[in-house]
Amino acid sequence: MSKKEVKRDTKTLLFEKGAELIYLKGYNSTGLQEILQAAGVPKGSFYFHFKSKEDYVLQLMDYFGDFMFAWLDKTLNEPDKSPLTRLRTFFQEFLAYYKGNGYKGGCPIGNLSQEMGDINDTIASKAETLLGGMKIRFIKTLLEAQHQDEISSSIDVETTADFIINSWQGAVTRTKILRSDAAMLLFEKTIFDNLLKS
Amino acid sequence: MSKKEVKRDTKTLLFEKGAELIYLKGYNSTGLQEILQAAGVPKGSFYFHFKSKEDYVLQLMDYFGDFMFAWLDKTLNEPDKSPLTRLRTFFQEFLAYYKGNGYKGGCPIGNLSQEMGDINDTIASKAETLLGGMKIRFIKTLLEAQHQDEISSSIDVETTADFIINSWQGAVTRTKILRSDAAMLLFEKTIFDNLLKS
Repeated sequence: MSKKEVKRDTKTLLFEKGAELIYLKGYNSTGLQEILQAAGVPKGSFYFHFKSKEDYVLQLMDYFGDFMFAWLDKTLNEPDKSPLTRLRTFFQEFLAYYKGNGYKGGCPIGNLSQEMGDINDTIASKAETLLGGMKIRFIKTLLEAQHQDEISSSIDVETTADFIINSWQGAVTRTKILRSDAAMLLFEKTIFDNLLKS
Repeated sequence: MSKKEVKRDTKTLLFEKGAELIYLKGYNSTGLQEILQAAGVPKGSFYFHFKSKEDYVLQLMDYFGDFMFAWLDKTLNEPDKSPLTRLRTFFQEFLAYYKGNGYKGGCPIGNLSQEMGDINDTIASKAETLLGGMKIRFIKTLLEAQHQDEISSSIDVETTADFIINSWQGAVTRTKILRSDAAMLLFEKTIFDNLLKS
């Protein structure tokens, strides 16, 4: 293994172990020492890769984003399904994942938006950029649905994409206290059987 | 001032000062010492009123709930407005408050649901009870709107109330990173001009 590979692996390890902690406990409640301990990485190595804990969480958000975008790109480009079915499938896949996780964690970007969005400009801006990446993919799929007459051409795809993202985030949060699939299924039903069919 | 009044005031002071801190920083990031310092109350007095920090936050949630229910009861029972206008007014009033706060804080119950809902059963259950109190008031107003033919009798008021609460919470969170009224206005427009009119 070359020196460069070792370095990349350390970084990945810090992302993977830190992600688990921050995903469940939040940013402020996860100490740097805890991340280092979980990853088995000394402090010096951490500061070789990251300027600060904030620099680390910003790069971790991109790491979450890459995972989310790969998932979206796979599901939203499934050739054998209609555009709307592909979009609905994404939410069903997320629910299956969330359910398998005992409804713990939720959406990492939503969590960080909620915890840090109003008190840290850089994290807020990074979160909005990542939700923007989700939005652009939803817009593309909604436009395809319009081209195939699956939804009305009068629907404003841009604001609809935003409304879907926000309502979905709200359903994800409610699920944390409901501990059931009710809020997620209600979201899916209202968006796909009502809002997009009107 | 009687001894009983002093005790009640200490409790109110702990709620008011602690609320400000927890509202912005979250539950885990706010230390008990910080709350005591902000309220100017010694540790002994705190433990006279509360068994633990968890007991304190549960009572604080009821304190937030009482405030929210009083607000809802005032706005949703305004006699000169139609039921739907009263409901819409509540969201407009919240937005005005949120805007005045520089889009900081959001909804205390939503924040605690997001931070603690998946890792603390008692806080999850308390949050769900409080959102249930909001839900019952929304259902009552939606039923009145049906009686007055403002919305279709085919609308399921119970699931609609839940969808409104969840989507609103999602819009509140998105607003923390957007730092504008766009997500809240989009929520209002979609719910009142689209969903409830279909």
